[in-house]
Amino acid sequence: MVRNSFETDLENLQSLMVRMAGLVEESIENSILALRKQDKELARKVYENDDTIDNLESKIEKICISLIAKQQPLAKDLRAISTALKIITDMERIADQAADISELIIKMDSIKHIKPVVDIPVMADYTKRMVVNAIDSYVRQDISLAKAVCNSDDEVDSYFSKIVLELINIMKNNPETVMQATDLMFIVKYLERIGDHATNIAEWVVFNVTGSHEHIS
Amino acid sequence: MVRNSFETDLENLQSLMVRMAGLVEESIENSILALRKQDKELARKVYENDDTIDNLESKIEKICISLIAKQQPLAKDLRAISTALKIITDMERIADQAADISELIIKMDSIKHIKPVVDIPVMADYTKRMVVNAIDSYVRQDISLAKAVCNSDDEVDSYFSKIVLELINIMKNNPETVMQATDLMFIVKYLERIGDHATNIAEWVVFNVTGSHEHIS
Repeated sequence: MVRNSFETDLENLQSLMVRMAGLVEESIENSILALRKQDKELARKVYENDDTIDNLESKIEKICISLIAKQQPLAKDLRAISTALKIITDMERIADQAADISELIIKMDSIKHIKPVVDIPVMADYTKRMVVNAIDSYVRQDISLAKAVCNSDDEVDSYFSKIVLELINIMKNNPETVMQATDLMFIVKYLERIGDHATNIAEWVVFNVTGSHEHIS
Repeated sequence: MVRNSFETDLENLQSLMVRMAGLVEESIENSILALRKQDKELARKVYENDDTIDNLESKIEKICISLIAKQQPLAKDLRAISTALKIITDMERIADQAADISELIIKMDSIKHIKPVVDIPVMADYTKRMVVNAIDSYVRQDISLAKAVCNSDDEVDSYFSKIVLELINIMKNNPETVMQATDLMFIVKYLERIGDHATNIAEWVVFNVTGSHEHIS
């Protein structure tokens, strides 16, 4: 009987996790769309939704701690709950970075001094796909997808270095771009961090399935 | 008897927390010193020490989860352990940012294109003090010190905006500074994030003492 109620609790936890994951995916999706279209209204929406995600994180955290305290779960369940605790921290950070990107879009000068830096949308899409895959690998406990996410982090890092160099050259050649290029530089930094958090999530999925936590990439 | 062993476990947890806090303080202290003196050797030391802090975080985390699972702690103890779990995440992030700062110092061009931006060391010291105070407030459970830390975050944010503007002007007027100013811009961003994490720690101290978690500043 106790076991059954515990299983119900675990299922509830899982469905809250999926809900949080959906909101995080929406945040990153919209922040990237807002960046591409310079849509300040959409950016504002992302920024304002961040509180909902923060609250969901606290709620899930409380449930995890109380499940651990009251049910004294067995090793496998304990690992699943610890994994949930870690993953929500990374999901919340991804949403934070999406909110940070949105904040920059809101305040950015709408006059375009810089021709689109082609690789920024490409990097943004790549990073978004990492997040979606990391979350999918968690939901489906798909260890090979999780490992693929870990292995793609180097690609994000190389986009980062390449775009920063490109922006530096733009600034050197045209001082009036400096303000806007600086904003873009921070945006690219946030994207790079989002890639790190997606990798963390994927590493936790591997831990949850195999019981061993290691840096894969 | 069980209670006594639990108290011993809690004391061990506390002493590991203090050890981790000491290492984090050392990391931020040394990264700031390395920045001021452009000491690449010291920066390398900070960068390499980051693993020790990561390992300590994992160790503390495991102890917390196992204390919650095996001892079914009462409300107050459960809160103390949950607080420890949150605080180590923020401490680990502070150490990460110190390592990020150090990584930039290691790769930075040693030829000085930019006259020292006076406010960077001032901001660095201010941020370091926030971290030290946040950790002290945790160790001594000093709620008024914790609140003071929360209230000082606005000051860090205003240093951040001011220095970024200053760097933008330097880059506009002198294109050969762009590369170095970009590195400094990221460093200032890391410092700003360190201030955020110190604030988070202080907010968790308030939660631990009062039982209510809120954003104070």
